[in-house]
Amino acid sequence: MSSNRTLIRNGRFLIPGAEKPVLQGYMSIEDGTITYIGTDEPWSEAGAGTTTIVDGSRLLFLPGLVNTHGHAAMSLLRGYGDDLALQVWLRDKMWPMEAKFTAEDIYWGTSLSVLEMLKGGTTTFLDMYIHMDRVAEVAELSGIRAVLTRGVLGHCPPQEQSSKLAGAVQFARDWNGAAGGRITTMLSPHAPYTCPPDYIMKFVQAAHDYDLPMHTHMSETKREVEQNVAEYGLRPVQHLEKLGLFTRPSLVAHGVHLNDEEIAILARHEVGVSHNPGSNLKLASGIARVVDLQQAGVKVSLGTDSAASNNNLDLFEEMRLAALLHKGISGDPTAVPAPEALRMATEYGAASLFLKDVGRLAVGMKADFIALDIDQPHLLPHSDLLSHAVYSASARDVEHVWVDGKQVVKHGACLTLDEEAIRRKAQETFESLLKR
Amino acid sequence: MSSNRTLIRNGRFLIPGAEKPVLQGYMSIEDGTITYIGTDEPWSEAGAGTTTIVDGSRLLFLPGLVNTHGHAAMSLLRGYGDDLALQVWLRDKMWPMEAKFTAEDIYWGTSLSVLEMLKGGTTTFLDMYIHMDRVAEVAELSGIRAVLTRGVLGHCPPQEQSSKLAGAVQFARDWNGAAGGRITTMLSPHAPYTCPPDYIMKFVQAAHDYDLPMHTHMSETKREVEQNVAEYGLRPVQHLEKLGLFTRPSLVAHGVHLNDEEIAILARHEVGVSHNPGSNLKLASGIARVVDLQQAGVKVSLGTDSAASNNNLDLFEEMRLAALLHKGISGDPTAVPAPEALRMATEYGAASLFLKDVGRLAVGMKADFIALDIDQPHLLPHSDLLSHAVYSASARDVEHVWVDGKQVVKHGACLTLDEEAIRRKAQETFESLLKR
Repeated sequence: MSSNRTLIRNGRFLIPGAEKPVLQGYMSIEDGTITYIGTDEPWSEAGAGTTTIVDGSRLLFLPGLVNTHGHAAMSLLRGYGDDLALQVWLRDKMWPMEAKFTAEDIYWGTSLSVLEMLKGGTTTFLDMYIHMDRVAEVAELSGIRAVLTRGVLGHCPPQEQSSKLAGAVQFARDWNGAAGGRITTMLSPHAPYTCPPDYIMKFVQAAHDYDLPMHTHMSETKREVEQNVAEYGLRPVQHLEKLGLFTRPSLVAHGVHLNDEEIAILARHEVGVSHNPGSNLKLASGIARVVDLQQAGVKVSLGTDSAASNNNLDLFEEMRLAALLHKGISGDPTAVPAPEALRMATEYGAASLFLKDVGRLAVGMKADFIALDIDQPHLLPHSDLLSHAVYSASARDVEHVWVDGKQVVKHGACLTLDEEAIRRKAQETFESLLKR
Repeated sequence: MSSNRTLIRNGRFLIPGAEKPVLQGYMSIEDGTITYIGTDEPWSEAGAGTTTIVDGSRLLFLPGLVNTHGHAAMSLLRGYGDDLALQVWLRDKMWPMEAKFTAEDIYWGTSLSVLEMLKGGTTTFLDMYIHMDRVAEVAELSGIRAVLTRGVLGHCPPQEQSSKLAGAVQFARDWNGAAGGRITTMLSPHAPYTCPPDYIMKFVQAAHDYDLPMHTHMSETKREVEQNVAEYGLRPVQHLEKLGLFTRPSLVAHGVHLNDEEIAILARHEVGVSHNPGSNLKLASGIARVVDLQQAGVKVSLGTDSAASNNNLDLFEEMRLAALLHKGISGDPTAVPAPEALRMATEYGAASLFLKDVGRLAVGMKADFIALDIDQPHLLPHSDLLSHAVYSASARDVEHVWVDGKQVVKHGACLTLDEEAIRRKAQETFESLLKR
């Protein structure tokens, strides 16, 4: 049988949760799947197909990072309005600019973000935005793994509501399983405070009809929780539970303001929470109860949110921030230890996006993995490489990236996207948006 | 007159606090001092000396970062003991290894840290540790600006106390003003909980005798504050005030657990506080009242603490962490805005170390400055470059570094230290420490 093989020799591989979390040895990949990982060389002679040999010394291999919440195209607004009160930021900065966004803008803004994410070791991202066909095009071209969903604002006339829902469903059906399975889709009423209850129920019905998971913003700010109680007599979790949203496989973004009862409901329905510490701090939304969520058995993963409120898409930073912040807040230096932070950014992220066979370096898993250059001052001495990946490394330490067994970043350069063109287009688009 | 000139052409320069914080234009340096910064080209023909021309397009220039608290040699223990309770970490991990440190180990550990700092844009660092002659050697060789002080643990017999104090004073006198003024010194009783009151008073007297500023750890953990009250009937700030420490120009590290009265005392005596957010979170020490300190007029700067509790020396990360954390904690998204965070890491840092003419890009200031490569996906579009420096950049974006007008990092490579040798020695030293 002829196949495309890659063999990593003499590498160090991170296996968080294992008794020995740093394995020194070999990993082989065939046709997009990990076929071997262990201390011995897996085959002694070349097979019938082509074998690419990678010298793994000086490199640390880990699963590709999984970003479970974001709005990629908004990188066009990076640095456009910082240090402002949330409502001022939205009303005076974000909304007027977003209203000008064309499908073409979305394409280049998404390209900028996907380029940043791939170069920074993120191999899977969830994107909730508009003009999703253009987002899907970028995902297809770039080689990244993507979970895509049209985010729908529902306070509009019934006809517009119907058309938006139909569009979101059409997109989800068109692209689910596309790009050789690299693209999957979800359905997303934007948030309980931006969609009327009956409209959310229509999304739930559609998700049942087409067997799609659901994603929504939830309980990001104290104000929206209070508003939900005032309008509907329920806090957001109970409200969404009542509307049936949690009868679908679901992932909510933020989950900052939750009480014990809400945490118990999320755990009971196996609802994932995408924790976005950087964005939540920057917008002063608050600090999610991550330790309590995890103790209740809720799957907590990590998201960057958009570069407009972060202001980068470096998932190493979110991983470290989660590990540090919840120690400081809880007063417990053993909270969110390094292996757990790494799993939040990889294994738990993949599970939160309902991706099977993604997020770990193990036989049978999809070959989404990255290699860090560990022969650098800030990653020495090599005392505990898992600790270094979480507490010392950054996106800029990523040397190589593979998705689905295909190398997409080599020596820091993206092989699938035209970086020069994207950088130029991103700048031109921003300047043009200012003038429109 | 013959002199060494550098001229930056077509650069963008950060001037936080100015009406236009991003100046596009030119900067000239002669013999270590900034002689011009402005929109017009400063001279039309070469002078009598050598002029080095730097093309500043695609680069963002900012003052070199100032790290106001650390223990450089402890980078040898990076990743050696994470996610542990503070006392376990100290007793089982740090102290046994530090007890083995030789002067030679200190040399290589410090070299590793200085290499990391210079490559990451830190041009000045404070170091409080032992075997300080070897630390000074590294500072002299590397070209970095350094404020050095022997940290003295005082619970020991009188003779040992005297000898340690004498050694600390001797070091401070020998090296103050060395390396063409790049090295200055301070005196440091380690902390109120590690030094008896009468011993601290002897340091104060010596600081008066030799006109030296003082640096100490203070109020890092709740426990040490409680212990201070139990032993001496006073909280640490009142305790140190009573011992006369604040009659000297002083900088305290951490200042996490302070009440209103203590903050007022620090403000009254113009005591600087080195805020170490990464280390404080990681060790679960708590979160300093930075917004309250700043409102009271206390000068708050930034420190990494050692790489054993951080776990890197990336001051961009501390800057961003300070800007994000205090928004999230205060609930005010306008807290610690980007220009203020940048000044904490530059201008306020220099002032906290009693360095005149350091920390800003302005005529007459010492030419300590760095250049970031801003033509990268995560730093585009160029909407607000000051925001990008604080919220999006990292140590790895540093392209060039100058200290005292001399270039020490060029295209990411250190010109003054042997990186290959330092990396090898750091790893060997760690392995040897494990075996000793």
